[in-house]
Amino acid sequence: MSQPLTTNSVLVEEAAADGDSSAAAPPLFDYHRIDQKLLQNIVYDALVWSTLNCLLVGDKSVQRSGRVPGVGLVHLPLSLLPGPFPESHWKQGCELAPIFNELVDRVSLDGKFLQESLSRTKNADEFTSRLLDIHSKMLQINKKEDIRMGIVRSDYMIDEKTKSLLQIEMNTISTSFALIGCLMTGLHKSLLSQYGKFLGLNSNRVPANNAVDQSAEALAKAWSEYNNPRAAILVVVQVEERNMYEQHYISALLREKHHIRSIRKTLTEIDQEGKILPDGTLSVDGQAISVVYFRAGYTPKDYPSESEWRARLLMEQSSAIKCPTISYHLVGTKKIQQELAKPGVLERFVENKDHIAKLRACFAGLWSLEDSDIVKKAIENPELFVMKPQREGGGNNIYGDELRETLLKLQEAGSQEDAAYILMQRIFPATSPAILVRDGNWDTGHVISEAGIFGTYLRNKDKIIINNESGYMVRTKISSSYEGGVLPGFGVVDTVYLT
Amino acid sequence: MSQPLTTNSVLVEEAAADGDSSAAAPPLFDYHRIDQKLLQNIVYDALVWSTLNCLLVGDKSVQRSGRVPGVGLVHLPLSLLPGPFPESHWKQGCELAPIFNELVDRVSLDGKFLQESLSRTKNADEFTSRLLDIHSKMLQINKKEDIRMGIVRSDYMIDEKTKSLLQIEMNTISTSFALIGCLMTGLHKSLLSQYGKFLGLNSNRVPANNAVDQSAEALAKAWSEYNNPRAAILVVVQVEERNMYEQHYISALLREKHHIRSIRKTLTEIDQEGKILPDGTLSVDGQAISVVYFRAGYTPKDYPSESEWRARLLMEQSSAIKCPTISYHLVGTKKIQQELAKPGVLERFVENKDHIAKLRACFAGLWSLEDSDIVKKAIENPELFVMKPQREGGGNNIYGDELRETLLKLQEAGSQEDAAYILMQRIFPATSPAILVRDGNWDTGHVISEAGIFGTYLRNKDKIIINNESGYMVRTKISSSYEGGVLPGFGVVDTVYLT
Repeated sequence: MSQPLTTNSVLVEEAAADGDSSAAAPPLFDYHRIDQKLLQNIVYDALVWSTLNCLLVGDKSVQRSGRVPGVGLVHLPLSLLPGPFPESHWKQGCELAPIFNELVDRVSLDGKFLQESLSRTKNADEFTSRLLDIHSKMLQINKKEDIRMGIVRSDYMIDEKTKSLLQIEMNTISTSFALIGCLMTGLHKSLLSQYGKFLGLNSNRVPANNAVDQSAEALAKAWSEYNNPRAAILVVVQVEERNMYEQHYISALLREKHHIRSIRKTLTEIDQEGKILPDGTLSVDGQAISVVYFRAGYTPKDYPSESEWRARLLMEQSSAIKCPTISYHLVGTKKIQQELAKPGVLERFVENKDHIAKLRACFAGLWSLEDSDIVKKAIENPELFVMKPQREGGGNNIYGDELRETLLKLQEAGSQEDAAYILMQRIFPATSPAILVRDGNWDTGHVISEAGIFGTYLRNKDKIIINNESGYMVRTKISSSYEGGVLPGFGVVDTVYLT
Repeated sequence: MSQPLTTNSVLVEEAAADGDSSAAAPPLFDYHRIDQKLLQNIVYDALVWSTLNCLLVGDKSVQRSGRVPGVGLVHLPLSLLPGPFPESHWKQGCELAPIFNELVDRVSLDGKFLQESLSRTKNADEFTSRLLDIHSKMLQINKKEDIRMGIVRSDYMIDEKTKSLLQIEMNTISTSFALIGCLMTGLHKSLLSQYGKFLGLNSNRVPANNAVDQSAEALAKAWSEYNNPRAAILVVVQVEERNMYEQHYISALLREKHHIRSIRKTLTEIDQEGKILPDGTLSVDGQAISVVYFRAGYTPKDYPSESEWRARLLMEQSSAIKCPTISYHLVGTKKIQQELAKPGVLERFVENKDHIAKLRACFAGLWSLEDSDIVKKAIENPELFVMKPQREGGGNNIYGDELRETLLKLQEAGSQEDAAYILMQRIFPATSPAILVRDGNWDTGHVISEAGIFGTYLRNKDKIIINNESGYMVRTKISSSYEGGVLPGFGVVDTVYLT
């Protein structure tokens, strides 16, 4: 199992002994100015560290690497050094994590709100429609989930125009990169311990990260609450997964630290091997399941046939703890994010006025396409907006002229298709220089970054067992190919350097 | 940094609770009888474990993988489960380690013995000749090495005919697989913790392994003895190295645990960047060096030009601690192994009669080609012998008809070329069934195994600071392609299951 490296190197000790402590030197963020030989040493060490500590993925160019472990491995594309990030914004994001955790839970309990808010989306988007069908069935049978857990990640950017931390999206299903975030933190702390004095960077300014341990801890505590010592945790996985080692790492933590067995199954396998026992227990391949941990099921691609939808329904109907429930999943849709941003809506779910103010401060403008004033404004000034589909996955956002044309077409059509999209205030994020390392090579460029703050949550009826901010991950992308709004897909992983 | 996994799994706990403790069941060594589904699960878990814990090498099919870290990675070819090994033989091998450590040191001090024993080899083998030249120069200048250290590995096989543990060879330079041995131990212990009850195997019967920590510890203590806090450890490396992560892991241990910096250089780079300061200190690229840790220099391929020989001489002349010195290197030659096996020779170096008996018990028959009686016997019965070159590296051994023909040719020629070889008693090792995993695929077969026991040694003048057995590594190979004597090259890595 990998551990972040924290020991100071001799270099740093020497620096301290020489009196040229890195705390005194101004941080060197213009990474283009780094001496080339030094830079090559740092890159080399980063590649070694990544291998020794399993900051690895399956290489796309190796066909089997998403199915067979241990073959076709390559280091994760990464940012060599952390990007600058204001400490005040960082604290703001961390403070928001437990507030968002609680908000997700509260909204998930309001079945009517979810159904009504998504009613138009239902007609336009087949995937959301199928999720809503399952949700409806649960409402009909009055399914209660006493034990509810969330591993959520709220993603933020800093808008350069307003100098504010703005939420891009909230991930409530298959929240990934907990391990990768932790390993990146370990890597950057290790590199700064060795080379920080040459760069004026102090490894203590890279925030600590506990996301992966906390994820495993939350799953383990949920397993305990379910209270069946013979039950296992079911990890729902995709058929191909090049980021499988993060999932395996969590399973290894569950086994070694928490003594809990986990099994991996695709939705198709769960349909074939799963059933609900008379007492409500989910059984898969003869194994009782206490917790269903989704690392698949968030995209239509995961449901190629009715088989997979049957599996999803089966799990939802069972007594197993779902991470997440269908309700939590729906709370993570863009449409709900947009509904919550409407005046007066947050107040329905949150009593604490300070919390409401904090939540609202990070909401970017979010509008339905039913709002004709905003649509008109967007057609006139498309550069101020981004059009986003309801679904997860990224990469399908619409900008600029295409946004204008799409809106005009939708107006002509007069169809329900507009409900498949929302309009969002276009964020103009700050850029910073970075060194990006991919496939053993490095390049420099100006990047924009999106910081995701993890929260874990577990409650049993009225008892809140876990509600915390657990860690973070940062995605960084060359800004020249950035089209605004959110990052389409992701570039490389990163951390932050608090300024 | 990776850690072997030792926690028992839920499966094993359940097995104990059910009363079907693995201690009671007879070990299942006929691995061909394992249920196919179970086997696939074990293979899958082994591949995952290997990736999470850096049991990885550069893939030969990826060109850059020996030069650029983090790319073209693949799990190490491995034996899925440990092979049976008698506990009495195991204890014998472990007891021998400190005795061999001390023997190597004592022999290294007898420059005349080394020169005389290798005098005929010198004429026949250019590589040994160059090593002897450096050794001669050190004798001429009366170079004293007060601080001497060894990371040695003695490799053994069990001869089925005599039921005895026989030494195959002694490695005194670039002794590798310390990390790989430890990781294999961690892997097998982890797999047996999970699946042992189905196989009647108990993870406690796989011996503990501390080889890599002890290697780093010995280097760190040598660094301390040298007593220059600003000095670094120099790791002498090959230009291409697909097993580089083991070396990097040791450097990481030195940095993180012992706060010692290490640098990596090829012999060519050392020739370009190295010099000896007036006080005798070795300086490479401006960095004072306290310990030279050879992970190259053991094969003629590492010396493509005079440049590399200059580098070797430079290091030997300096005050840096050499792991190993030129003397230690020479002690590891086959010819010295053969000399030590001659009647009365051990007694020149070892006082303790019990130690002498223990050493002699593990010596296979070893003869010079000057011994005409033995040569005659080998021509008549080539199947009882193996002909080995003096040099390290394996793969060039001669057996059967070719052995007979080579001996006849050498007799005719009447040249000095016979001094390049020795004759060794052919060992007939026991075979056992095994499951070999390579490139994500597995296959079964009958294998023979060679167990290497590591020893670490450090002394400063009369003070012995370290002299221990530190761990082990096992190499396993399909027996059908086995031609006798020693393993030509190696197949896959393994551990042992004590019976």
